[in-house]
Amino acid sequence: MKERDKLQVNEQRFQRNFEELAAIGSTGDGGVHRPALSEAHLQARSWLQAKIEDAKLDFRVDGAGSHSGFLGCGPQEASTLLLGSHLDSVQYGGRFDGPLGVLAALEVVQTVRESGVSLPFNLEVIDFTDEEGTLVGLLGSSALAGKLQTQDLKMPRGGRQRLEDGMSRAGLTEMGLLSAARPVDSLAGYLELHIEQGKRLETTGTDIGIVSAIVGICSYRLRFIGRADHAGTTGMQDRLDASLGASDFTLAARRIVMEGFPQCVVNVGDMVFEPGAYNIVPQQVTLALECRSPQTAQFIELEETLLAEAQSCAEKYGLGLEVEFQGRHQPALMSQEVQGAYAAACERLGLSHTTLPSFAGHDPQSLTDLCPVGMIFVPSVGGTSHAPGEFTEWQDCLNGASVLLHTVLELAQCT
Amino acid sequence: MKERDKLQVNEQRFQRNFEELAAIGSTGDGGVHRPALSEAHLQARSWLQAKIEDAKLDFRVDGAGSHSGFLGCGPQEASTLLLGSHLDSVQYGGRFDGPLGVLAALEVVQTVRESGVSLPFNLEVIDFTDEEGTLVGLLGSSALAGKLQTQDLKMPRGGRQRLEDGMSRAGLTEMGLLSAARPVDSLAGYLELHIEQGKRLETTGTDIGIVSAIVGICSYRLRFIGRADHAGTTGMQDRLDASLGASDFTLAARRIVMEGFPQCVVNVGDMVFEPGAYNIVPQQVTLALECRSPQTAQFIELEETLLAEAQSCAEKYGLGLEVEFQGRHQPALMSQEVQGAYAAACERLGLSHTTLPSFAGHDPQSLTDLCPVGMIFVPSVGGTSHAPGEFTEWQDCLNGASVLLHTVLELAQCT
Repeated sequence: MKERDKLQVNEQRFQRNFEELAAIGSTGDGGVHRPALSEAHLQARSWLQAKIEDAKLDFRVDGAGSHSGFLGCGPQEASTLLLGSHLDSVQYGGRFDGPLGVLAALEVVQTVRESGVSLPFNLEVIDFTDEEGTLVGLLGSSALAGKLQTQDLKMPRGGRQRLEDGMSRAGLTEMGLLSAARPVDSLAGYLELHIEQGKRLETTGTDIGIVSAIVGICSYRLRFIGRADHAGTTGMQDRLDASLGASDFTLAARRIVMEGFPQCVVNVGDMVFEPGAYNIVPQQVTLALECRSPQTAQFIELEETLLAEAQSCAEKYGLGLEVEFQGRHQPALMSQEVQGAYAAACERLGLSHTTLPSFAGHDPQSLTDLCPVGMIFVPSVGGTSHAPGEFTEWQDCLNGASVLLHTVLELAQCT
Repeated sequence: MKERDKLQVNEQRFQRNFEELAAIGSTGDGGVHRPALSEAHLQARSWLQAKIEDAKLDFRVDGAGSHSGFLGCGPQEASTLLLGSHLDSVQYGGRFDGPLGVLAALEVVQTVRESGVSLPFNLEVIDFTDEEGTLVGLLGSSALAGKLQTQDLKMPRGGRQRLEDGMSRAGLTEMGLLSAARPVDSLAGYLELHIEQGKRLETTGTDIGIVSAIVGICSYRLRFIGRADHAGTTGMQDRLDASLGASDFTLAARRIVMEGFPQCVVNVGDMVFEPGAYNIVPQQVTLALECRSPQTAQFIELEETLLAEAQSCAEKYGLGLEVEFQGRHQPALMSQEVQGAYAAACERLGLSHTTLPSFAGHDPQSLTDLCPVGMIFVPSVGGTSHAPGEFTEWQDCLNGASVLLHTVLELAQCT
């Protein structure tokens, strides 16, 4: 066993960092409210900057606002292995989703720096901007991968105004966002530790989940359009009530997925009624639809089936339908080499592991066609996530950071 | 035929008044925007005051701000037959809903004054405050009937701030509103002309609709409560998705009414999703429910059936349900005597007539248990209402005013 295989992360420092960070934007019930580029999110980033500087890493910010800490531990002109996650949260979300991966990455890079070991690549801990999609979704990783388009910023899922407000708070520009791409040959790979946000690891009593693929996600805004009428004097049969198409579709979408697409999921996360009064028949209902699938062919079929169902629900009630495409990420396969290195690290540390797809979207999917990418999960208690009750046992957090460190060392051996 | 049976309203004056009034708060597309106690509404009331004074009627304002013009055409200590409607509109509404009834009433009282005839009662044209419910709903007529409660002003449907702002603009006080009741024995009755806001008269080619009853209305806020979960990682079968209960109820409410309560109507006019994101399973959906029925027993059964269905929809998807009662007006029966007088007036004028319930709420319902109350409708083209496209042919407006005048004369004969 080489000396560097004995390296361990600093548990106390890791935990202290975790607790300090969870206090920023805390909602007082275990959760945090740090939507991308909100004041609380920017405060968390300032905190991270200080930690990166304390750790004697080179602090960097790219054109998309992603914060990082670079360690030149590789040979001259070596490429860089990125490790990271994100500090932004959903609205009133949990304190583990994102921060755990950023702090574990910081801990790994800091541990390597302190050990003084040289690796065949450089290391860089990175906090990607807007993973959660408050504004655009996977914004920092898409920008770094050179995949962000002008179009993505024109009608973002969070609305243009919110994006502009956030950019202004963070001092970002559209030009900066669109020119944050890194040269492909500068990337040795990307590793991320994240909580599972599901119950599979807990149910099977497994320590580490090695992600095989990240599901494809697509989202649409569907607008059912009827006619505003007086809700007293207009007979039931004379109405063009937009709520009926929207409600029928909501029930149908669930039925379609449960019966015909058992590996997939669908969500109608929001509806907005207009004019939205007790005594006026709803003129239009705008619905937020999202669906996910781990396989490309099935993904295409699911999307087509749902959109055809929306059209059929509109016609059933004499309504119009407007379909606004909001975005799509194809299913993303993780690197076999990195999955192997994760498994070897688990074996070395005596941790049980399994392979599973991720049903959540994550930054790694932006990078899979640029460099070797791999992701691991640690168990979420009860599977709860995107809510203040999100929780992962501290030992599991620590296991994740240890696997991340030893996977870096495994990859260094392979190289 | 007595001399007074030959009386006719002054068509030119009536039409000129109608056009002058429609210009106040005009939206330029045939509609008016005169929410209760807005600047435009108060301007319309100043205009009415001038017209009442021009007509040599006694101008009065009560504690609820209702404007009226009194004609002492009865014996000493006679009671007063009120005739009127309202000058306020819904947001961006039409120019017929309300103003037609006030101006027809003004024309009737002015015609009687000019004729010099004596009647067994006095006459008074009245413009009730806030019929449409921008603030409270049927505010002026409830206050006059002594039915307005402190509670009604605490959490009004338009919000407390809007009510306070309106009262301040109009120089009204809470004390004044709550003490605007008239002595019951001062009221000989109440007559109102209004547009139908539906298509029944137009469809059957009938000149005049004699209202048998004004439907009862009740409204509820229903909150379906589930659990916010990650919309990717939470399996479809593991979700407590509030959108499912709300959607299922929306479809069921329509089915229940169309199949089991053909004389009734129901509306789900709004839904608010929380947290309302693409990628979060809806934790709660709050739904605005309103239903209407012309018969008391049926009204009770309808309300009970809808609330039981909401409970059943919640249970079906493992959801909680919170029911917030928002308000109720019981079905209000119109006076048989007044209905007979309306019919006799139509016969005398050679106008076709039919009897029908009103599916919209109106000021007469505040007064049915205090004095004989009756209401007539004239046809609405296409049934359009609460919108700038609201329209009634001028001949129909004139027919309504003539019937109103001759109904007063009929009632004078009966007395």
